[in-house]
Amino acid sequence: MPTVSLSLDTRSYDIVVENGAIDSIASLLQSQNISGRIALITDSTVAPLYADRVEASLSAASMSYSRHVFPAGEQSKSFQTVETLVGEMVEAGHDRKSIVIALGGGVVGDMAGFLASIYYRGIPFVQIPTTVMAQVDSSVGGKTAVDVIGGKNLVGAFHQPRMVIVDPETLDSLPPRVVREGMAEMVKHAAIRQPSMIPALIQMAEELESGFSPETRAQLPQILADNIAIKARIVEQDEEERLGIRALLNLGHTLGHGVEASLPYGEMLHGEAVSYGLRAALFLSRMHAGLPAEDEQTILHLLEVIGLPLVLDASMDEELILKKTATDKKFSAGSIRFVLLDRLGEAHVSHKVTVDDLKKAIQCLKSDLTSC
Amino acid sequence: MPTVSLSLDTRSYDIVVENGAIDSIASLLQSQNISGRIALITDSTVAPLYADRVEASLSAASMSYSRHVFPAGEQSKSFQTVETLVGEMVEAGHDRKSIVIALGGGVVGDMAGFLASIYYRGIPFVQIPTTVMAQVDSSVGGKTAVDVIGGKNLVGAFHQPRMVIVDPETLDSLPPRVVREGMAEMVKHAAIRQPSMIPALIQMAEELESGFSPETRAQLPQILADNIAIKARIVEQDEEERLGIRALLNLGHTLGHGVEASLPYGEMLHGEAVSYGLRAALFLSRMHAGLPAEDEQTILHLLEVIGLPLVLDASMDEELILKKTATDKKFSAGSIRFVLLDRLGEAHVSHKVTVDDLKKAIQCLKSDLTSC
Repeated sequence: MPTVSLSLDTRSYDIVVENGAIDSIASLLQSQNISGRIALITDSTVAPLYADRVEASLSAASMSYSRHVFPAGEQSKSFQTVETLVGEMVEAGHDRKSIVIALGGGVVGDMAGFLASIYYRGIPFVQIPTTVMAQVDSSVGGKTAVDVIGGKNLVGAFHQPRMVIVDPETLDSLPPRVVREGMAEMVKHAAIRQPSMIPALIQMAEELESGFSPETRAQLPQILADNIAIKARIVEQDEEERLGIRALLNLGHTLGHGVEASLPYGEMLHGEAVSYGLRAALFLSRMHAGLPAEDEQTILHLLEVIGLPLVLDASMDEELILKKTATDKKFSAGSIRFVLLDRLGEAHVSHKVTVDDLKKAIQCLKSDLTSC
Repeated sequence: MPTVSLSLDTRSYDIVVENGAIDSIASLLQSQNISGRIALITDSTVAPLYADRVEASLSAASMSYSRHVFPAGEQSKSFQTVETLVGEMVEAGHDRKSIVIALGGGVVGDMAGFLASIYYRGIPFVQIPTTVMAQVDSSVGGKTAVDVIGGKNLVGAFHQPRMVIVDPETLDSLPPRVVREGMAEMVKHAAIRQPSMIPALIQMAEELESGFSPETRAQLPQILADNIAIKARIVEQDEEERLGIRALLNLGHTLGHGVEASLPYGEMLHGEAVSYGLRAALFLSRMHAGLPAEDEQTILHLLEVIGLPLVLDASMDEELILKKTATDKKFSAGSIRFVLLDRLGEAHVSHKVTVDDLKKAIQCLKSDLTSC
């Protein structure tokens, strides 16, 4: 099966991608010598879909577990949920030798990973991501977090999983809109490091509405693994985002964050906001980094085929977007830290982007695709 | 000034001990190249005593800071306090370049250290411990934690401080009972690694009631530094308590925990419980590790001179103490992980102690000092 090894000294781990992996969790854990009592943490959406199958695999291998379900949704990514789950885990007898399994999307992975990082001052955890977004992005790299009033992901820990298990068949249970938003991160990865995978993304995108063909299903594990590998290589080079390398993964996320945060929470999916953010980043990359227009068109076309939004509604409040972008804490001395593309496959962190440039980019987002 | 260097690769730091250090915080930070905006975290007891002096030092050096005070007491060592303080820090504009200073006793250090470990996924912090307990024990070694319903210190992180600043003059503001309880940990350190420091502890103890003489005051920084160094050497060898070395610091803490937890919280100070626990450990060490009776007497005498309690009230519930000791999670297969002294200065983790032995030890604690 396709396996991406992420190499980080004593914190190295494998990301395995296999159709039907959900039914062989126990043997996959055993293949990595992961043993101990398991706290299976999942949310109210994912539990009815996959928890029984995961537990059947664990039971068949005589592995001991307890199940802990919290209400689905970003509002559960809180200290309060962590505290509730800690209480449940204590009640179930989990100690420093137990293992957390995070089964679900980004909220489950971020929150259960954070919980694992602080339970008994840190126990191992395994990610079983069930959305595209979580599979190619949030489950890989060890960033865990909860939200606080001051901001999303503002508190957390770097806590690498012991293993990530990706089952591409979980995509079948996702609404197409949720697959689309996850693909925004796949596009980002391809754009900053590996444009050669764009045809595979086009292939996925074209079958999104009708359902994947048997050929595409067979290829999905490798496509996902290739995309995950892009992030893995970046995390290896700059685990704690100190060297300006991991920061490249913020391509499309600066203005994207501003757009997302300017709307009531939940109205726009994160990946949809990233789609707008990518269009803005392409525009600014042409302005400041000499990105060829045809490279810009390649990515815009890909986002269009996927069905991600690119033209911002005229009613959106520009000042608010700008303000929310600025509070993204990437500003310093008048300009903003902003990831630009030099050409497909090559990106850098720039300090050239000014507030005025951001205003132009927002105006561009409100124009149709041919006019900026 | 006496300085203990704790060597842990990239996480090494100095513990400096100096009379009047509270008034030269800024220059001490600068001596270690610690700069950045400061979040000064302290509690409602310590703030009126020392916060102004710390801030005066920072102001004089043009260092930027904000003050964050929470209600004193163990009940503040909670997720809720952490979340409140995170909100205050965000409001005050602190980001990943800020520094937390924990000014106070063990609760402040544990909780503010934990906060620092998760704010923006980890920012540096500095400990300014103001109780003996915090100075010689909890501020050193990077264990941070909050309490949850399931147990004290059950969630937390290993997050080493960038520096520890100890001002022995802060002892003047402590009730003698609080100095005494802190000295229980000093006795523990001497017993497991360095009995040569017992005369210095006797000297401190004899002046506790009347107030320290000028000679003792002048010697206190070195006495504290020598005691801190014992813990520092142990932490260097086994930072995350995986090798059975750091576990030696649990001497007196197993039954001590049981005694403490069998009473309503706050009735007995932690160090007082440790005093009972040390007496029980000495008794069991004589039984199982051949501890010479004269070594036992030396430590008992020291604890007596300090004024720590050694004879348990006859009304104490033995079964409850036993139950609380067992939930201390040191049990496995009928016997308990228990730190025993072979002789003064030499300890080991034993698996010989049975539940029956624990019962005998509790009975011993209820007898006068001559009869067991």
